[in-house]
Amino acid sequence: MHSDALLRLAEYFAEFPGIGERQSKRFVYFLLSKHPEYLRDLAHSIMDIQKNISRCELCYHFFSGRGEKLCETCTNPATDTTLLMVVEKDADYEAMKKSGMYLGRYFVLGGLVPITSKEAHSRVRIDELVRALKQQAGLKEIILALSLNPHGEHTDTYLREVLSSTTRELGITITSLGRGLSTGTELEYSDTSTLKNAFKNRQ
Amino acid sequence: MHSDALLRLAEYFAEFPGIGERQSKRFVYFLLSKHPEYLRDLAHSIMDIQKNISRCELCYHFFSGRGEKLCETCTNPATDTTLLMVVEKDADYEAMKKSGMYLGRYFVLGGLVPITSKEAHSRVRIDELVRALKQQAGLKEIILALSLNPHGEHTDTYLREVLSSTTRELGITITSLGRGLSTGTELEYSDTSTLKNAFKNRQ
Amino acid sequence: MHSDALLRLAEYFAEFPGIGERQSKRFVYFLLSKHPEYLRDLAHSIMDIQKNISRCELCYHFFSGRGEKLCETCTNPATDTTLLMVVEKDADYEAMKKSGMYLGRYFVLGGLVPITSKEAHSRVRIDELVRALKQQAGLKEIILALSLNPHGEHTDTYLREVLSSTTRELGITITSLGRGLSTGTELEYSDTSTLKNAFKNRQ
Amino acid sequence: MHSDALLRLAEYFAEFPGIGERQSKRFVYFLLSKHPEYLRDLAHSIMDIQKNISRCELCYHFFSGRGEKLCETCTNPATDTTLLMVVEKDADYEAMKKSGMYLGRYFVLGGLVPITSKEAHSRVRIDELVRALKQQAGLKEIILALSLNPHGEHTDTYLREVLSSTTRELGITITSLGRGLSTGTELEYSDTSTLKNAFKNRQ
Repeated sequence: MHSDALLRLAEYFAEFPGIGERQSKRFVYFLLSKHPEYLRDLAHSIMDIQKNISRCELCYHFFSGRGEKLCETCTNPATDTTLLMVVEKDADYEAMKKSGMYLGRYFVLGGLVPITSKEAHSRVRIDELVRALKQQAGLKEIILALSLNPHGEHTDTYLREVLSSTTRELGITITSLGRGLSTGTELEYSDTSTLKNAFKNRQ
Repeated sequence: MHSDALLRLAEYFAEFPGIGERQSKRFVYFLLSKHPEYLRDLAHSIMDIQKNISRCELCYHFFSGRGEKLCETCTNPATDTTLLMVVEKDADYEAMKKSGMYLGRYFVLGGLVPITSKEAHSRVRIDELVRALKQQAGLKEIILALSLNPHGEHTDTYLREVLSSTTRELGITITSLGRGLSTGTELEYSDTSTLKNAFKNRQ
Repeated sequence: MHSDALLRLAEYFAEFPGIGERQSKRFVYFLLSKHPEYLRDLAHSIMDIQKNISRCELCYHFFSGRGEKLCETCTNPATDTTLLMVVEKDADYEAMKKSGMYLGRYFVLGGLVPITSKEAHSRVRIDELVRALKQQAGLKEIILALSLNPHGEHTDTYLREVLSSTTRELGITITSLGRGLSTGTELEYSDTSTLKNAFKNRQ
Repeated sequence: MHSDALLRLAEYFAEFPGIGERQSKRFVYFLLSKHPEYLRDLAHSIMDIQKNISRCELCYHFFSGRGEKLCETCTNPATDTTLLMVVEKDADYEAMKKSGMYLGRYFVLGGLVPITSKEAHSRVRIDELVRALKQQAGLKEIILALSLNPHGEHTDTYLREVLSSTTRELGITITSLGRGLSTGTELEYSDTSTLKNAFKNRQ
């Protein structure tokens, strides 16, 4: 692949989540063999996605709507405004929404705070979250809904620290998603931490 | 492999957990090339395992000890006799024991009740469990500690039904291990059931 | 993901080689969070790939060059014109080129002939291949270099049939890549066909 | 698993090909729960395998037969005694035999010569192989049939060196299994060595 144009496109694709160098080249060859019109449509589709998508100014979720400031969940009067669930990213938001059991507001943090990071503020939307807390009238509980891996746990701890004075002041409770056995967990192969949580949280 | 003796041994190995036909043959060739003394030692080791191992008459756990009736956990005065944890098999018992946070008694059920089974009694130690409940003075809580898969969940439901009259009579509470996020759970890829449990059991 | 624009883009990505529905959505979210300028650059990069890339009119390989008709290999006087290697696709061409041991011409077939196909002609460049054979002065040997899977083997057989009268007429030999043990082949786990080829082609 | 007897048996199983520590313990629990008669039968089956199995004094293949010195292939008058195929182990012998296309004699080397080894002689049956060469009347060709991995290739080179004077003296040709594409080989993902062999050995 000696053309600069092909290599540059392959480099773009190699940045896509989960795509390595080899597959990025296959993408390029795949596109090379397509009709020019297909490429034009794809390119326009890429340029257009942000056009009709807005990022909610309250919860930072991407939503369908041109020029609108607030997403449907944030404006829906049926949304339970006593709850605010903090998720890492849009895909987590969608997974939770799809489960159908949570009916409150959300806040998309925009990432996790890496354990080793010294610039947590620049990585995630801390200031925006604090502002959202203060703006949500009637808020009683913030639910930290982060994946159960080292960065997720670190972010949970970090958020509890950073938010503590604000939540104390406003009388808001901070909770985290429950821990224990998840679908498919086999006791025999479980780590001590999962078994401890499962025992502690038995019911 | 045209010798009947080899094929018969390969068939034995093919019954071992997780071993297929091909690997069972590799085991046979592996043993064929060993010194006769090695084979004799291995064979004796196999015949001997049950000699110095007893199955506890109370909890049905295998333990080291010749001719003894009760295992160390069942006889240890430090064991918390207000609790009884029901596990499927010895490996689960060991995993839980190793985690170090549970200090009560155990009961090894000897299997799970398959969803489709009509002979649950013959599959697991129900009668023995009921008897164990009645014999354990001061018992306050039975903890069902089963893997979170369809058979495990079915067994949980089944045990709660079968034990209900006895536990009501004796004033014993039935609990199950807590459910939610386990180590490594990514929200984005979680099923609805795990998310529901994690939300319901937030804290 | 309820926006039509997002879903349409996700559908595009789901057509990419090796990409499923879930990953295609991750691509979309990945792009959503990028700066508009990044999207514009990527889109232009996609539209541009064919601009500076030509498909060689002789061998059908994509190559770097605007408006040129023949690729470097086809025009290079050092290329051995007594040989013509038929490959399925550009990636195979590149793998072979990179190995550095073949110095003749190539022909990119554009696909394989599926075993069940009744329209072989519309699937691969047969007519173009016959024409290339006739145009290549001094051609002595065509090397069928197809992957060793059912469709590849079927295509090999098909090409030998279709080309036989032309090659006989022009005095051209048809060969296929050698078969036997490839890097990593373990005898114990090899299929009969590989062992047969390896034995037959011993040297 | 605190019983010495259990741990010792688990250690035996952990030596079995492809078995790790965890699975070896599962084997032990599996056997613990079996009927004593089952264990006795398994143990006898293990002790018995060598009883009715002999190792051929010519080719070192294990074969069914008590007290016999030569295997069926070595004694069968239909066996082609102009050929001798050197394989690493019994499983390779079986794979080759099963393919049905080779009808000559075999020699089981008993291992490969590791690249870094300085004691090749103690690892594989070199002296026995030289003796077998000399004893096989009418032998014309030795086929080195070793897996195509670094140790296999090293052993191939090593054998050619060690055997060269004997084979030259006796007028015996040394060949190796053919190399090229094996079943399933995709050109795009092939290493240079496989492509080189496939091109060189085209036909």
